[in-house]
Amino acid sequence: MKQRIAIDMDEVIADTLAKFVHLYQKDHGLTLTPELLHGKELRDALPPELIDSVRKYINQKGFFRDLEVMPGSQQVVEQLAQKYDVFVVSAAMEFPNSLEDKLHWLGEHFPFIPWTNIIFCGYKIINTDIIIDDRTKNFKGFAGRTLLYSSPHNLLLTEFERVNTWDEVASLLL
Amino acid sequence: MKQRIAIDMDEVIADTLAKFVHLYQKDHGLTLTPELLHGKELRDALPPELIDSVRKYINQKGFFRDLEVMPGSQQVVEQLAQKYDVFVVSAAMEFPNSLEDKLHWLGEHFPFIPWTNIIFCGYKIINTDIIIDDRTKNFKGFAGRTLLYSSPHNLLLTEFERVNTWDEVASLLL
Repeated sequence: MKQRIAIDMDEVIADTLAKFVHLYQKDHGLTLTPELLHGKELRDALPPELIDSVRKYINQKGFFRDLEVMPGSQQVVEQLAQKYDVFVVSAAMEFPNSLEDKLHWLGEHFPFIPWTNIIFCGYKIINTDIIIDDRTKNFKGFAGRTLLYSSPHNLLLTEFERVNTWDEVASLLL
Repeated sequence: MKQRIAIDMDEVIADTLAKFVHLYQKDHGLTLTPELLHGKELRDALPPELIDSVRKYINQKGFFRDLEVMPGSQQVVEQLAQKYDVFVVSAAMEFPNSLEDKLHWLGEHFPFIPWTNIIFCGYKIINTDIIIDDRTKNFKGFAGRTLLYSSPHNLLLTEFERVNTWDEVASLLL
């Protein structure tokens, strides 16, 4: 039997942060530089009067539909899907308006992932051998190998095996 | 730590079959009796010219939004949620138009289940101690205790621990 990999969406195969950076520039003239975001959650890099806007943006229909694909992810995930049982696992349930957008986005950019292997959830109580995720809370109680996909918010964490790019994932797993 | 239970939606807490019975009566004058459905998938109980209509119904927005709640399920699931970590796990991903309907239906009828504990998936590769489901394919590879919730299509199966009503679930698990 093939080993199973769970792959997160936001900040792992979908560039959610880039969309926020674009929106804050466009709507508020705010430039979110890598320096401002380093080691911080997005809300903690915003001026107080804009913190509520994060949730407003994220709850809008369409927010997740036109995200850029993370560089290299399509090619590497397609190769991984030859060798492993690849599941895309997103904690999408917090944002009901994201469900259809995320599913259509996957259909467009990762058409080789069948519906059987897509999981939208809250807690990731999944039974896989490997998980690739930018949120260490999703590693809690997970018995397999954890790969922390680098994102500005997690750059200060040191106690996890880390991957910075999809090329690095390929080197480790292919 | 509490034990975890995975509870399926269709035919377990939501009366999907009753909706079909209603629609076939209304739209086609076809009476689907318990005798016709006994031990059969719905499509196998239909005349050939109506088989395609199953998928048409199920893909319509709204199909899953107004399903009847299975008798006793609200009360028993709410009690289970005191003693166990209860997750609702539905193989909804096959029907993209069902996702929002199912989420809103859960919010209406099972508001005590938080978003963190809702899982829409294909294969149920979940890590729980118990699963209650009407489809034995979801027991494949599952390491915990399986409870087959009776539905006409599974009535001929004999090799599984079975529950016929939510009262029986309560007797076993509460």
